[in-house]
Amino acid sequence: MADLSRLSFNQITVNSWTLREALGGCARHGVPAIGLWRDRVDAMGLGAATKLVKESGIAVSSLCRGGGFPAATQDERRKRIENNLRAIDEAAALGTTVLVLVCGALVGRDLEGSRNMVVEGIAAIETHARERGIKLGIEPLHPMYAADRSVVVTVKQAREIAARFPPESVGVVVDVFHVWHDPDLYSEIEKLQGRIVGFHVSDWPVPLPGILMGRTMMGDGVIELSRIRSAVDKAGYAGPIEVEIFNQKIWDQPGDQVLELMKRRFVECV
Amino acid sequence: MADLSRLSFNQITVNSWTLREALGGCARHGVPAIGLWRDRVDAMGLGAATKLVKESGIAVSSLCRGGGFPAATQDERRKRIENNLRAIDEAAALGTTVLVLVCGALVGRDLEGSRNMVVEGIAAIETHARERGIKLGIEPLHPMYAADRSVVVTVKQAREIAARFPPESVGVVVDVFHVWHDPDLYSEIEKLQGRIVGFHVSDWPVPLPGILMGRTMMGDGVIELSRIRSAVDKAGYAGPIEVEIFNQKIWDQPGDQVLELMKRRFVECV
Repeated sequence: MADLSRLSFNQITVNSWTLREALGGCARHGVPAIGLWRDRVDAMGLGAATKLVKESGIAVSSLCRGGGFPAATQDERRKRIENNLRAIDEAAALGTTVLVLVCGALVGRDLEGSRNMVVEGIAAIETHARERGIKLGIEPLHPMYAADRSVVVTVKQAREIAARFPPESVGVVVDVFHVWHDPDLYSEIEKLQGRIVGFHVSDWPVPLPGILMGRTMMGDGVIELSRIRSAVDKAGYAGPIEVEIFNQKIWDQPGDQVLELMKRRFVECV
Repeated sequence: MADLSRLSFNQITVNSWTLREALGGCARHGVPAIGLWRDRVDAMGLGAATKLVKESGIAVSSLCRGGGFPAATQDERRKRIENNLRAIDEAAALGTTVLVLVCGALVGRDLEGSRNMVVEGIAAIETHARERGIKLGIEPLHPMYAADRSVVVTVKQAREIAARFPPESVGVVVDVFHVWHDPDLYSEIEKLQGRIVGFHVSDWPVPLPGILMGRTMMGDGVIELSRIRSAVDKAGYAGPIEVEIFNQKIWDQPGDQVLELMKRRFVECV
């Protein structure tokens, strides 16, 4: 029997499923962990979601997402920080130890200023995360999202931000889709020793079908998945490996079919 | 009168124009230089194109493009190198000193191997370039093109490849659209002292309308153009600044209108 012990199903991969359906899918398919999204938890209410997750016996590899720190006004930045503090509480309630940070969009044309707001935002929530036993996972996003999603775009940059904070509370999430192209990828992963708090897999198809909905199932693209996985393992990461795919064609397939394929490709390619 | 002395019109910006029309546009609008594409030169024939360019009095800032080195077979790689040698001759005939290199696509899933093929390709043409007085300009492309256009995706990577060769024959082309997001941009530009052989401007609109046709007119996006221009100037580059825009909406406008706007925005934003 193939080893699925580190496989986690990020629920966005079957976008049509509710939280209840996603947990049911994991149970049916023997997938031991799930990556949750806040909007799906909200749709059910945190209390009911927490109860359902605990009853399911499925581990929660991470909650997605905090972040979104840069904003044009002090007031808006404060609201974003409050929202992150709530996300930390939700993560703790759901029984995960990782809150994924999608750090946030560019403000105006000020890339440096926006990046500073990310550091300030993490500084403002880090103590609360530590107290609740949550690690904040800085996820560098692909540079094509630099303007509208994350001004943090390289492993090096995420590593340098994380290094300002204790490893107990701030780490880095490596997502192959976002970083596979980086000429410094392997040397940077090596430097992340003890700081990796999440590892996400999918694949980069050629041609890319779109900017947001670009990624595909492992094995259907050009990323050297097993090489990156080995590097991440060697850097000391032994946690769940989340399959996170935004892809309309995959979203249009029945969820059970997607999970079957996901399991097979995880074993074959990752 | 605004200073247009360093402005160069890359002819792709008005995609509908032939070479003759593009040169005529430059003359009418007082644009002192043009960036040429090989297919437009081919369409007229090199001899006729060379004659026309010389008669126009418009300087040629660069010829686009060489590169495309990685390929699955030795035979195909050899053909690509021969094609690059011809491109060098064409560049020399047209009176420019710069051949822009779009280094080429990923072969299979072998990013490292493909990158090595780029270095080998440049090594195979460098002497010929030097003898013909042509500088090969390695242009790092945006990482979203890593699989299908250029495995060279950062300024640092381009700089390190260039450093293997003499500065007389190999340099780096900085295009703001491709590198604006790079957290190491300014420190990397500083390290390019004496190696910058081209500077291309356009802008990054939000949201990006597409992968290939994403870029827009200077001032209509989020790139800190004048900051990057200052850094490039400070790194010793005093050559032409090419406006190179692939954008369907701009391509749909009359060329003279595009050139008017280009001139105004160049003065205002760059």
